[in-house]
Amino acid sequence: CSSCPPEQATPKPPPPDHRDLGTQQELFTTSFYSPGSAIFLPNGARIFNRLVDFLRKQYVRHGFQEVITPTIYKKALWAKSGHLENYAEDMYTVTSTSPSRAEVTEAGEEDEYGLKPMNCPGHCLIFASQLRSYRDLPIRYADFSPLHRNEISGALSGLTRVRRFHQDDGHIFCRPLQIEEEIRKTLEFIRLTYGVFRLGSYRLALSTRPERYMGDLEDWEQAENALKRALDASGQPWTINEGDGAFYGPKIDIVLKDSDGKEHQTATIQLDFQLPKRFNLEYMAPAPLLEKRGETTTDPELLAHYGPVAPVMIHRAVLGSVERLMALLIEHYNGKWPFWLNPRQAVIVTVNDTEPVVKWAQHTRNVLLGIDSDVDAPVSPTNFGAVDVDESTRPLSKKIMEAKAKGYGVIAVIGLRDVAAGTIMVDATSFAPADASEEEKKKLKGLKMTPEELLDFMKKKVTAYA
Amino acid sequence: CSSCPPEQATPKPPPPDHRDLGTQQELFTTSFYSPGSAIFLPNGARIFNRLVDFLRKQYVRHGFQEVITPTIYKKALWAKSGHLENYAEDMYTVTSTSPSRAEVTEAGEEDEYGLKPMNCPGHCLIFASQLRSYRDLPIRYADFSPLHRNEISGALSGLTRVRRFHQDDGHIFCRPLQIEEEIRKTLEFIRLTYGVFRLGSYRLALSTRPERYMGDLEDWEQAENALKRALDASGQPWTINEGDGAFYGPKIDIVLKDSDGKEHQTATIQLDFQLPKRFNLEYMAPAPLLEKRGETTTDPELLAHYGPVAPVMIHRAVLGSVERLMALLIEHYNGKWPFWLNPRQAVIVTVNDTEPVVKWAQHTRNVLLGIDSDVDAPVSPTNFGAVDVDESTRPLSKKIMEAKAKGYGVIAVIGLRDVAAGTIMVDATSFAPADASEEEKKKLKGLKMTPEELLDFMKKKVTAYA
Ligand SMILES: [Zn+2]
Ligand SMILES: [Zn+2]
Repeated sequence: CSSCPPEQATPKPPPPDHRDLGTQQELFTTSFYSPGSAIFLPNGARIFNRLVDFLRKQYVRHGFQEVITPTIYKKALWAKSGHLENYAEDMYTVTSTSPSRAEVTEAGEEDEYGLKPMNCPGHCLIFASQLRSYRDLPIRYADFSPLHRNEISGALSGLTRVRRFHQDDGHIFCRPLQIEEEIRKTLEFIRLTYGVFRLGSYRLALSTRPERYMGDLEDWEQAENALKRALDASGQPWTINEGDGAFYGPKIDIVLKDSDGKEHQTATIQLDFQLPKRFNLEYMAPAPLLEKRGETTTDPELLAHYGPVAPVMIHRAVLGSVERLMALLIEHYNGKWPFWLNPRQAVIVTVNDTEPVVKWAQHTRNVLLGIDSDVDAPVSPTNFGAVDVDESTRPLSKKIMEAKAKGYGVIAVIGLRDVAAGTIMVDATSFAPADASEEEKKKLKGLKMTPEELLDFMKKKVTAYA
Repeated sequence: CSSCPPEQATPKPPPPDHRDLGTQQELFTTSFYSPGSAIFLPNGARIFNRLVDFLRKQYVRHGFQEVITPTIYKKALWAKSGHLENYAEDMYTVTSTSPSRAEVTEAGEEDEYGLKPMNCPGHCLIFASQLRSYRDLPIRYADFSPLHRNEISGALSGLTRVRRFHQDDGHIFCRPLQIEEEIRKTLEFIRLTYGVFRLGSYRLALSTRPERYMGDLEDWEQAENALKRALDASGQPWTINEGDGAFYGPKIDIVLKDSDGKEHQTATIQLDFQLPKRFNLEYMAPAPLLEKRGETTTDPELLAHYGPVAPVMIHRAVLGSVERLMALLIEHYNGKWPFWLNPRQAVIVTVNDTEPVVKWAQHTRNVLLGIDSDVDAPVSPTNFGAVDVDESTRPLSKKIMEAKAKGYGVIAVIGLRDVAAGTIMVDATSFAPADASEEEKKKLKGLKMTPEELLDFMKKKVTAYA
């Protein structure tokens, strides 16, 4: 009202910093002994694993097959892939400290290894390990290996400037005529994923053939046209960075804008005509000359002739670096995780530490964790969740305040009356949507439930990635 | 009957070799570019990930918290841990190829890293990163990081003699008086796990204090007694290897005997009094002198005094090396995987390639994979399974024969009549127990089911780790 003093313009709080939140929520730490390599604490590892699991589930629909590949490869591989020529500054060298155990080259020198900065050469080796037919394509490999790149030490910071990181890496080996469809599907995958994270809008940027490029002009034009058609089909706005592509192929970048207007490049889709050639990758196809141009024919004479064709390789990452995306998510949610990602999903707070109350609290915890079965039976693969019990003797109000500060999604209180009734008193206000009314929030506050009902309630959230 | 020729004594087939089966079932391969580092192909990666997932589920009950730790640490860490002194021959050195980007020591030299052969020092860093109270213990960290040990190249073979491997590694930091309980629980965990794999019996061997040992005699005796009590409580036979322990603590080995009578050392439980001291690990406890001896008191005067105590560290792995255990399982099952581990769980074979049949086959596949929902919705975390479709035009009998040879757990046939009836014809004879009668097997052969019924049937198997 007019007699009240005018509201003070509260100063805008500083934007959230994932390093502070990471410490506060015990997500990760770093060590002097391994600068640039994040150490994920249990809470951070939970989020990390859930992100990876989310992708693994989606891979079933998108036809990606996970592989597990070596961490070190001989320098000869990095010479073949071109990394030694173009990327040596960023790579670590691995040697044996014991000459007697070192691999020795033909020239009699000790063999050196490169610590992998990328998975692509390894995936090329897998592609080349079998004879491939056009019927086998597209082949899509996924890999969550740790990667190392030697960033200068001054630049290292939190989860964004690191030396060790994980990509949700994928490589698609496809026929030239499959490029458009693969790009279209990848853009769909990206849209779905960023929708689940509620990360807001992003823009797509196509980088086209640079002045210095390798390969056939025809291949480039055909590929760029396929990319443009796929971008158009995505229904999302996109722009062109003319001449900004890599020398080995055009690419699409996904650029997110955060709440402060800062832009973050996350996902990428990079076409590559060169690496398959460096590794002599090929598949057998009818009418190979047409096949190479992405064309088909019904001419039986042409179809009768089979020949080798180099596949097109598409490097793609949906999250980009898992570490960097985690940093983005930490800042985006500002400590308020959606339930499925929350490293602290539920806490059971006891009113006192009498035996029946503590026992009921522990029983509830076991039900929520799916470990209430016979100890002689293994824990079922359908179990999930991160549930704690606070049975300390501190005052209830203090325990609840602490649980809220720690960001638990569900706070369940247990007193002597609950034991008799076989229930728990649940506060799930954190489940309310951001725009919920006070009325709606109140409904989520004093829910009387059985442990099994709460489990169901929680499972629904997790199953919906909510 | 007596007029038939006597049955020929068939020569005993050679014992299964995991390298041959690994190639045949497309589980893994190796490359000249990374000797001793297995490359897990999609089928092998499925098994690998299911083993890891199995453990992750059990960790909830056993109170292990997963962490994700660096791959390389500065040499200073390996000096601190004692590895540089005792283990340098087995380790790889990591250096920067770009002097300008190398970390520099205080003395102005370039910093060198060690590629980790073990996770223990990393876990000590995590323990030391916070102040710990006796109330926080036991703290149990789990880690599935890749590890590297420089085995001589002549010894490398398949998944058993490798340079890169993964342990289902765990470290327990506990109070001296918790040793017995932790060992008891670990033995229980091991028993449950080997029961699930049906790997047969194993023996437990306790290795006691060697002549040259470090630490207090009293600590050793107290710990060995705790181990013996836990071994007795396990109800399993155990033996003693007198004086065979490491200089830093006694240990328990789990030795499996395979069908050929060959023994395999898999799980280990290693007590360690030294590493916590090297890392100055401590927790605060009342009556620290008694605490150190694993004793308690009710004397309020003693309890009033708090002081630091070094935790006991227990290194333990249930599978041991995941690679080595996979090799064992491959040979043990001889290609006939239990359904939950089978990389080829189900195949849908079409009678012909007419449109309605192919469509129904693809619908069935989508139901079994849990991807029959709206493409705009993410694939649910409860989905599972590895399902293929063979819609080629080859003769049905040939397709079925091939599916059997490939080891599919479920073979579902679809013809035009099935489309109309909304069913599939399922052969699940591989689900029959080894000692099933012909009658029982026959029952599993011609099952007419809806896709949803088959999904249920499969889910039950996976949920029971059967
Ligand atoms: Zn790549
Ligand atoms: Zn260890």
